[in-house]
Amino acid sequence: MTEATASTPSPELAGPADGGDPRHAAAVLGMVAYLELASFSRLAADAGLAPTLRQRLELSDMARRALDRVDRVAARVEELGGQLEPTMGPFAGVLAEFDSRTVPSTWWERLLKGYVGYGVADDFCRILAGSVDASTRALVEEVLDDESHSRFVVEALAEAAQGDPTLASRLALWGRRLVGEALNAAQRVLADHPTMAELLDVALPEHQGDAQQRLFSLLTADHSRRMDRLKLAA
Amino acid sequence: MTEATASTPSPELAGPADGGDPRHAAAVLGMVAYLELASFSRLAADAGLAPTLRQRLELSDMARRALDRVDRVAARVEELGGQLEPTMGPFAGVLAEFDSRTVPSTWWERLLKGYVGYGVADDFCRILAGSVDASTRALVEEVLDDESHSRFVVEALAEAAQGDPTLASRLALWGRRLVGEALNAAQRVLADHPTMAELLDVALPEHQGDAQQRLFSLLTADHSRRMDRLKLAA
Repeated sequence: MTEATASTPSPELAGPADGGDPRHAAAVLGMVAYLELASFSRLAADAGLAPTLRQRLELSDMARRALDRVDRVAARVEELGGQLEPTMGPFAGVLAEFDSRTVPSTWWERLLKGYVGYGVADDFCRILAGSVDASTRALVEEVLDDESHSRFVVEALAEAAQGDPTLASRLALWGRRLVGEALNAAQRVLADHPTMAELLDVALPEHQGDAQQRLFSLLTADHSRRMDRLKLAA
Repeated sequence: MTEATASTPSPELAGPADGGDPRHAAAVLGMVAYLELASFSRLAADAGLAPTLRQRLELSDMARRALDRVDRVAARVEELGGQLEPTMGPFAGVLAEFDSRTVPSTWWERLLKGYVGYGVADDFCRILAGSVDASTRALVEEVLDDESHSRFVVEALAEAAQGDPTLASRLALWGRRLVGEALNAAQRVLADHPTMAELLDVALPEHQGDAQQRLFSLLTADHSRRMDRLKLAA
């Protein structure tokens, strides 16, 4: 150990070493952790309803990876001096209304819901993470970057919808319903969590006062890209 | 590499190196893999309904470990020259009737169902594994030896039932219902899978012809021990 190391002040217990408001980091990490736990539950439920054993195994594996991501977020929360449960607690139930308003009636609707609904939630977190410390931001981006579920859904849905125009137009309608409800859910999060609203203003500084509208147009654009990938009308 | 090693015949592709009928090993591994996958689904569903976030996280973690056990079984299946899906496929749905006849109506009933219903299934596999090659048997015993869920249920239920005699007697009744249905399910597995019935005769050789009755008394005794641990009447 050198003199220089010994004289370096020890990092704050309750904040990131590389700057940023620790409340902001905690809010983003808490929400991401909760969303990943919710993904775990949803993917496991999807697995149980999958039409083939192979798909059941694949979706179960994706569920497991969502839970691994909860652990990675928990590790960062602890690095910052916090604890997982109280950090994610405020966000528990953030999807309850969304879920109750978007009960899928078929396997295809269920798959699309995972892709579109959670896609919007991920994008929302990614945008807010723009204003937290660099290490937290990098972790959030990494954690939200699992492409395996998207690929699974795109392959399954694109193939099914291509051969069945009725299905394709019903799914396009369902996609619009989902994105509408997802945007409502995002709006509720901002209304219920002042820290998140603060974060948004920091993340989109050029749109002060108007940040919510800008957020919604970013989320809608990402949604359209996802629907395009499925060859469904946005 | 020595001369002796070089002259050792390579092991059979489709069978255990240390003896035993490969069809028997495959049947036990297939059933254990399916039961662990079903445990994963059930634990994940329980997690989603858990009354606290802490319990939700604990049960989700247990679900993940059940899926890790599927992987361990899969590795052994592959060592024996097989593949997971076709090996477990014949056992998919082995719990469907049991599940449809034992829909829990409360959180406590749900916990007890996991402990009692899957307890019987695990014991059933453990007994049949007595007649397969030593490596497969050791793996099955290890895989079925996760105490964490039992501990979770025993702690939660014993405490709740102790302070509430009405709950305790309702759960005792539910336990009898569960074990009855679990024994029916075991009987169906033996009837539908001739390999499993063969295995049973090998596993309990002193009870040839009468092995099923002996199996049921072993399963019932284990069930009584579990109910004792919960301080509930068997």
